[in-house]
Amino acid sequence: MAPSQTISVDTLMARVQRIFEKAGVRPQSAAAVAHVIVAGERDNCKSHGIYRIEGCLRVLAAGKVEPDAVPELHDTGKAVIEVDAGGGFSNPAFYAAMDLLVARTRETGLAALVIRDCLHFSALWHDVEALAERGLAALSMCPSYSFVAPAGGKTPLLGTNPFAFGWPRSGDKPYVFDFATSVAARGEIELHRRAGTPIPEGWAIDRDGNPTTDPEAALDGAMLTFGGHKGSAISTMVELLSGAMLGEYMSKEALDFMGRTDLLPRHGALVLAMDPQTFAARSGRDPIAEGEKLFTAIVGQGARLPSQRRFAARATALSDGIVLSAAEMDQLDRFEALGLAALDT
Amino acid sequence: MAPSQTISVDTLMARVQRIFEKAGVRPQSAAAVAHVIVAGERDNCKSHGIYRIEGCLRVLAAGKVEPDAVPELHDTGKAVIEVDAGGGFSNPAFYAAMDLLVARTRETGLAALVIRDCLHFSALWHDVEALAERGLAALSMCPSYSFVAPAGGKTPLLGTNPFAFGWPRSGDKPYVFDFATSVAARGEIELHRRAGTPIPEGWAIDRDGNPTTDPEAALDGAMLTFGGHKGSAISTMVELLSGAMLGEYMSKEALDFMGRTDLLPRHGALVLAMDPQTFAARSGRDPIAEGEKLFTAIVGQGARLPSQRRFAARATALSDGIVLSAAEMDQLDRFEALGLAALDT
Repeated sequence: MAPSQTISVDTLMARVQRIFEKAGVRPQSAAAVAHVIVAGERDNCKSHGIYRIEGCLRVLAAGKVEPDAVPELHDTGKAVIEVDAGGGFSNPAFYAAMDLLVARTRETGLAALVIRDCLHFSALWHDVEALAERGLAALSMCPSYSFVAPAGGKTPLLGTNPFAFGWPRSGDKPYVFDFATSVAARGEIELHRRAGTPIPEGWAIDRDGNPTTDPEAALDGAMLTFGGHKGSAISTMVELLSGAMLGEYMSKEALDFMGRTDLLPRHGALVLAMDPQTFAARSGRDPIAEGEKLFTAIVGQGARLPSQRRFAARATALSDGIVLSAAEMDQLDRFEALGLAALDT
Repeated sequence: MAPSQTISVDTLMARVQRIFEKAGVRPQSAAAVAHVIVAGERDNCKSHGIYRIEGCLRVLAAGKVEPDAVPELHDTGKAVIEVDAGGGFSNPAFYAAMDLLVARTRETGLAALVIRDCLHFSALWHDVEALAERGLAALSMCPSYSFVAPAGGKTPLLGTNPFAFGWPRSGDKPYVFDFATSVAARGEIELHRRAGTPIPEGWAIDRDGNPTTDPEAALDGAMLTFGGHKGSAISTMVELLSGAMLGEYMSKEALDFMGRTDLLPRHGALVLAMDPQTFAARSGRDPIAEGEKLFTAIVGQGARLPSQRRFAARATALSDGIVLSAAEMDQLDRFEALGLAALDT
């Protein structure tokens, strides 16, 4: 097998953008999608890096995402801003609305961004991290596909429903977490299935609702939420706030719409942004300095802050480049040369 | 022992209010505090029912809560409303601000309520349920005392940091959850200590950071968050959003201020309210009807919605009254006759 190669972040960015343009995506959207994919690869989040390109191309080939959708902003001047992704990728829609969201949040103290009808494939940390870097606290959530049973139930209904939070820090990368409200990712169960190894207890139930460590039975049954009934409650909240409340698909309807689980889901997303300076103003305290006290105490007792591994990988990637396997480089070549036609080879 | 007695919700309300007035609390505040205590007892949440009266009186006797504090509203017309509890109980402050919060939320789509410097003893479901009954989705959170270690740590730092959510339903009680972000309540560990029984694994670590099932070692060590690092992340978020962001105490400073763990904590609280009708408007869908689809599917597979036991207990209490033990009635008599002096008997 050919050796791995090192590629700079900028070069990878240009290549991924060309792949999406070749696949028919309008340039601004291709740039936005490439940005989050390369950011994932750069941060060594392999499951949200260039691995995602093929999945995105498959939805394009299936005609289930609009390649030339232009995000449309709807702003009534209130604390809720909306952007219609028009069936396109979520990322161009978020970037189209971000500056307005930041400005509105600084003006009103808090504001929400509703993203409507978007194809969603990226981690949520992109959005909350971008807002935290602009000095705002941010929450983000969206439904996914019905793979997860509610606590006490036995049938898939909830999505793996990610929940992300960002908090600005002075002089440091933001405090950022982003996790699925299921115990594990579906992909992890799939990996166990391929390897023929059992999954840990507590990840899933079989189709009769019994606990199982058989990945096959788990995929045929239902995944479980993290943290028992508390995690199930949070996952339900995600369905309500980023599905029902927006009048967008919840996880069940998203799956019904797409009709198959191997295509990325289309639904809405909710981002809440808060300006700590507004909230703290009357206290006379600096909210960012207060937050640092907590982080110092967490790190001081040997606990880790979330996202630190990601930030370390980023620093390495930015200085030394990203190492890709020969197979990965090969795939990039193929996608860049053939566009959607590469999917059939 | 004397038999138990049945008392109507209204009678209990009048009695508890008189107890707080006798203890020097201004009438409007006594009514607000009595309201949430009786609501807890009515819903058979014994840990937040009349059991709380003694704890409240102890903080009054210790001079650590202001009995005659008048909540002060601060409104700049933006999406963030503030109310200074002035060192008084949180409940009068919330009720003083609620109508404005509801009106502002309907106007702007979402709004936040900051409660400053309040003595906090009640469950958060009161606030989110009241808002959900007015048609709003609501989130509420606050710090508490540093009893909980962050994931990967071994020293108490985070509070048991409750997190509550409410969602309006048509024709039914709201969807409401309210839980501590610690695995268990501190009181549960205390009960095991008194009973001489071990606590379940995963609840706590000893002072050296090792897992323990010894309640004594647990109380001397640190409690753990629910859901491992994910619950720890949510608890950290609660410290940041309802402590640092408001310029109010986080759990560590709240404990330092009070100086002892047997007094209820004083800190701030954050409530976020969203108007689903605003968020859904452009979708053409009814967000409340969408939510019902999810609830129907949850209940349809035999899973329970949170708070249902509470609502059932409420219905019984409202029709048949509340059953109190002779010891409980006795305590009410004593508190009503003697006020704070009853604490020494």
